[in-house]
Amino acid sequence: MNTKYFDYASTCPVDTRVLEKMKPYFSENFANTSSMHSFGEKIKDEVENAREEILKKINGINHKLIFTSGGTESNNLALKGIAETYREKGNHILISKIEHDSILNSAKYLKTKGYEIEYIENDSEGLIDLEDLKQKIRKDTILVSIIHGNNEIGTLQDLEKIGEICKEKEVFFHTDACQSFCKSEIDLEKQNIDLITINAHKIYGPKGIGALIIKKNINLTPLFHGGGHENNLRSGTLNVPGIIGLREAIKSLDKEELLREKKLRNYIFSEIENINSIKILGSKENRLVNNVCLLFENIESESILLSLDLKGFYVSTGSACLSNNNEKSHVVSALKVLKNKKNGILRISLGKENTLESTKELIIEIKKTIEKFD
Amino acid sequence: MNTKYFDYASTCPVDTRVLEKMKPYFSENFANTSSMHSFGEKIKDEVENAREEILKKINGINHKLIFTSGGTESNNLALKGIAETYREKGNHILISKIEHDSILNSAKYLKTKGYEIEYIENDSEGLIDLEDLKQKIRKDTILVSIIHGNNEIGTLQDLEKIGEICKEKEVFFHTDACQSFCKSEIDLEKQNIDLITINAHKIYGPKGIGALIIKKNINLTPLFHGGGHENNLRSGTLNVPGIIGLREAIKSLDKEELLREKKLRNYIFSEIENINSIKILGSKENRLVNNVCLLFENIESESILLSLDLKGFYVSTGSACLSNNNEKSHVVSALKVLKNKKNGILRISLGKENTLESTKELIIEIKKTIEKFD
Repeated sequence: MNTKYFDYASTCPVDTRVLEKMKPYFSENFANTSSMHSFGEKIKDEVENAREEILKKINGINHKLIFTSGGTESNNLALKGIAETYREKGNHILISKIEHDSILNSAKYLKTKGYEIEYIENDSEGLIDLEDLKQKIRKDTILVSIIHGNNEIGTLQDLEKIGEICKEKEVFFHTDACQSFCKSEIDLEKQNIDLITINAHKIYGPKGIGALIIKKNINLTPLFHGGGHENNLRSGTLNVPGIIGLREAIKSLDKEELLREKKLRNYIFSEIENINSIKILGSKENRLVNNVCLLFENIESESILLSLDLKGFYVSTGSACLSNNNEKSHVVSALKVLKNKKNGILRISLGKENTLESTKELIIEIKKTIEKFD
Repeated sequence: MNTKYFDYASTCPVDTRVLEKMKPYFSENFANTSSMHSFGEKIKDEVENAREEILKKINGINHKLIFTSGGTESNNLALKGIAETYREKGNHILISKIEHDSILNSAKYLKTKGYEIEYIENDSEGLIDLEDLKQKIRKDTILVSIIHGNNEIGTLQDLEKIGEICKEKEVFFHTDACQSFCKSEIDLEKQNIDLITINAHKIYGPKGIGALIIKKNINLTPLFHGGGHENNLRSGTLNVPGIIGLREAIKSLDKEELLREKKLRNYIFSEIENINSIKILGSKENRLVNNVCLLFENIESESILLSLDLKGFYVSTGSACLSNNNEKSHVVSALKVLKNKKNGILRISLGKENTLESTKELIIEIKKTIEKFD
């Protein structure tokens, strides 16, 4: 139990109930789902059951699910797979300015291959400009990809409205839901989502497993060629314990816990709002229940992180994926709220083990840090 | 304990000692290696230690290791990554006719992108024709990719001789060592290997983890763009329990056990050799210790498999990756030993839980099956 880990958006511990359900699949029910013998068939059936259960969770009645190694693979497969398969229809792809790096850098790669990447505008809270989206969809647009819950600033987009526009304009709509899956409503039918990326380790499942879920009529050029697994869309031996872990992680999530995290989040907001040198980033209304993202006017990210680390608090300076780089976050830059070079970003992402007590302690330490540096 | 599972080349149970070592990394030591806090740094250090240990195992003093989701991803990354990065040098790629599907189908995909794929000849035991290899390497050859231990027929290639030729001709040499890793000698320096694919689930490690190991001076276009993990060669949150599992699987392997499997294998050969309607495929001298591959003259693969399955024996009709298809194996076809359509293939791949007793029982059942169908 570590009540001072406030970095759940980066990764979560595997829920012990999830791990218990995974365990038999390592050393007992270990057969290869491609094996033709009855042992293989038995495990294949269990994987197919898991596939159906996961699809059901998001009303995927017209969709198929491709198991992948995680969010980054799913996002790469969505962008590159659509780009290559639908090249004859066009080469224009629309994304937001606040995508996860796996979308942003896949798009940049596609640009080197002759695709045109255009960016949809957003407001200072990170909400997509729906009028701009409408304007920018062209006849040769093959994909719109917009992140659901932003991994840094927590802003949640209105998938239903985006989906409606894409449906009307007859263009595929992909959303990266790694941060929002099981935390905010996702209904593939209601929201007209053609492709969606999910993963397990952000919802107390294991690392190394995720999925790309796509409409049944969509075809994709695979990233992995090989034995023809996953209907030729993703070759490679299926990671059965991971797949069971993904299913169990979904089953173990608890609405009460999400409400508890939301209360903790709002408590932090209420405590922080009175501090002049801190600004809350992202939308307060349309926001991931467990995300707090703060802009410090006069302290650099690394200094805040180090101060808190010395007191045993684990937080993030933005996306974990970027933490090893020293670049400024493209997400925060897109909000156009940065005033000077010394601006620091702190992401607090809440989870099961955080208590009101540890949250109060964290706020006290943040206040002390400001006093020290300001 | 299942002594009648004879399909270890398809996949293995996770060794319980390996699983014990993995366990703390699911729910306790769970941090993201990209996180900047000390918890993340601690896990990152453990991953870096694992990386060094794995490299050491195959004398990778001049190599770097990229963690992937498994053999198929590593093979795809090797072929497509080299092809794209070294396109200016040439577009000619040489592979054998007995590659795993992940090499064969990656090569076929590259052919659609303008690369020229040429196949090196082999003899009736599946051994590469080294003279043919020498002849076929051209100035515009950018890669030679040859599987080490064949997954279907068990034949082991002479990596040292192939490596020597590739070094002399100054062309990159990749080998898929998924079946041979930890079972046959691999020394990247001695054998002049530039790129090598390994994975964990064939050596009693977990599914969903593998690696591509490449010379330090080689650059690759990644399959996954994103947060820049693995020195920008493979983005995506690192699967830490998987990485620990890969390391531990390597450590847990036991030379005595390999000798025991070799004895069992040779025992099967001695029992089968007297049966006229069965031919042993692959090389008997240069062969994976745990592989037996049999050609039945008058019985189809499915019939043999079903017969044995009813008696509780799990075997394979060739590669598990292909089992769901009804196509004839391209590997067996390349040996040019198939006489008629009714030829059946049976792969017996031995592992830790097989006993002399269960092996004897298996042979009795095979003999009964022949009597029934012949």
